[in-house]
Amino acid sequence: MTQESSKIIRIAVDAMGGDFTPDNPVLGAAEAAAENSNIDVILVGPEDRIKEVLRKKNVNLSNLKIVHTDEYVTMDDLPAEVFKAKPNSSLNVALKMQREKEADALVSAGNTGAVLSHSTLRLGRIQGIGRATIGAELPSMNGSTLVFDVGATVDCRPDHLVEYAIMGSIFAKYIYKKDNPKIGLLSVGEEKSKGNEVSLAAYEMLEKAPINFVGNAEGSDILKGTVDVAICDGYTGNILLKLAESVLELLRFKFREYADKGFLQKLWMGMMSGTLKGIFKKFDYEEQGGTPLLGVNGVSIIGHGKSTPYAIKKMIFRAEQVARLEINKKIEEAIKENKLINK
Amino acid sequence: MTQESSKIIRIAVDAMGGDFTPDNPVLGAAEAAAENSNIDVILVGPEDRIKEVLRKKNVNLSNLKIVHTDEYVTMDDLPAEVFKAKPNSSLNVALKMQREKEADALVSAGNTGAVLSHSTLRLGRIQGIGRATIGAELPSMNGSTLVFDVGATVDCRPDHLVEYAIMGSIFAKYIYKKDNPKIGLLSVGEEKSKGNEVSLAAYEMLEKAPINFVGNAEGSDILKGTVDVAICDGYTGNILLKLAESVLELLRFKFREYADKGFLQKLWMGMMSGTLKGIFKKFDYEEQGGTPLLGVNGVSIIGHGKSTPYAIKKMIFRAEQVARLEINKKIEEAIKENKLINK
Repeated sequence: MTQESSKIIRIAVDAMGGDFTPDNPVLGAAEAAAENSNIDVILVGPEDRIKEVLRKKNVNLSNLKIVHTDEYVTMDDLPAEVFKAKPNSSLNVALKMQREKEADALVSAGNTGAVLSHSTLRLGRIQGIGRATIGAELPSMNGSTLVFDVGATVDCRPDHLVEYAIMGSIFAKYIYKKDNPKIGLLSVGEEKSKGNEVSLAAYEMLEKAPINFVGNAEGSDILKGTVDVAICDGYTGNILLKLAESVLELLRFKFREYADKGFLQKLWMGMMSGTLKGIFKKFDYEEQGGTPLLGVNGVSIIGHGKSTPYAIKKMIFRAEQVARLEINKKIEEAIKENKLINK
Repeated sequence: MTQESSKIIRIAVDAMGGDFTPDNPVLGAAEAAAENSNIDVILVGPEDRIKEVLRKKNVNLSNLKIVHTDEYVTMDDLPAEVFKAKPNSSLNVALKMQREKEADALVSAGNTGAVLSHSTLRLGRIQGIGRATIGAELPSMNGSTLVFDVGATVDCRPDHLVEYAIMGSIFAKYIYKKDNPKIGLLSVGEEKSKGNEVSLAAYEMLEKAPINFVGNAEGSDILKGTVDVAICDGYTGNILLKLAESVLELLRFKFREYADKGFLQKLWMGMMSGTLKGIFKKFDYEEQGGTPLLGVNGVSIIGHGKSTPYAIKKMIFRAEQVARLEINKKIEEAIKENKLINK
């Protein structure tokens, strides 16, 4: 997978992944293909329905292709069963293309569990990696903080946390352009002695890992931006992420409640809404370019089910970046280095 | 500890617990004693310093007493060591009074770990309870959601989570006046099959417990108020709580950042600040009456180190409530019932 910076990156988009399909993936793919001539976008899904959306919008781009399949994974399909039950799903076909070197990356806003399990089964894992991980970007006073893992593995061993830290460090460095990113281990206090069994054992290993490990981080350090990458097991990370995502909802609810108090309050809130929108923008998943699935031997970007065309476009550009910068190769090297140190 | 509703409740306040001592505990105690003649407030700490604060404020109340001790636990003292090292600390003396039936409750805004360990060692646990738990109140679209545990036990067994659920249910019912409170188990998805090893095992036991168990709750259910009580291990809960507490800080930072953009933005933010304060009030620890430590054989209310006199007053009233409503007796009965069912 050596790629010069001028090489065309081929991105397979799961046209049937998400809550608004095929419309949003197709429109997002069209926007991305129109803006960026260094990528080929391949829409995988029912050809007629994809073409209909493209026709309505008068899209006709040379770097936008279609690979037909009628089957697709729904949000209700069980990840453990659907892999066998729907071998020709758009998700599976898109991943097969990557395995067969017909594509360089996958973008899907579909069933997260299915994208995770299909990607792991189809692409395998990077050499030396025991568990793949899903990350998330949260807003911070410092820009943003990445959290790994947010749900790929609920019961983690200490060495899994170390893998997440190494992968997160490389992702923060090359994708977020953070120099020598600060890696923190989420725990119940700053002191080395604070933590649960798994985090205490991971701490020892992280001190020796080839990363800028700054010790334990507390829950508040995520939004404060004290660390660039926060590491925890997927159970904690998933609960954390969903809590953080719901902050915006609670605030909207509180502001609406206030506006409902009377005419003046409504007017006041109406006047404030533009300001608030700007301030809350960072809480918005749309801007984040999807969630990286790291550790698989390929590129897989997972999006929110509600992804808009704009969000899909951002995910496609993110996928291009991850492929072009050869993030996986860098991960493989760092894992090798860590195994030598931590032996 | 049978108490009729007219009985005087005696509350020992750790005058040296917190970041602003003895001022804030003393002033809060004085406010509480002045407003409520059904309580006796006992300030435990250095008599001279306490009297000086009272004199400055011209306080002279018959239901405000002082028990002298010079020693006290600092925020930096290690909980595991300070119990032996400072036997006459204000915290320890206040708890000894409760054990010797000279007080009915403790209020402290001091070192959380020390309040937890001292309370457990001095008061013992309620019969049938394996682990004490610290709870927290988070704002929700529905008023508020209680989370247990937020840091008392980082590695929990499934039966600990069940105890937390039972204690939380009683606390929500009697203190928060929630009828048949909905208890959710924090996890990575709604389905019963989703969770980590500990939560999956706890799920089975919770289904049979004498509570209104509504199944798994996700991180977003806390702020949405889908459940009244959310249960998790202390590692996850502590990280979660500190993340939630820092939301207000991030918002303040974002609003300040906006205001710094120019004169008009500053003016605009100045005009909005009152509105925002009202809306954010629910995120503020001051209103919450401290954090209950449940499971110990006595009453122990833990406050934020930064507690203002107003926050201390609220904590004292919360302590009164917990003692007067005999929450511990109700917990003991429910735990007995659960043991019969879950045998």
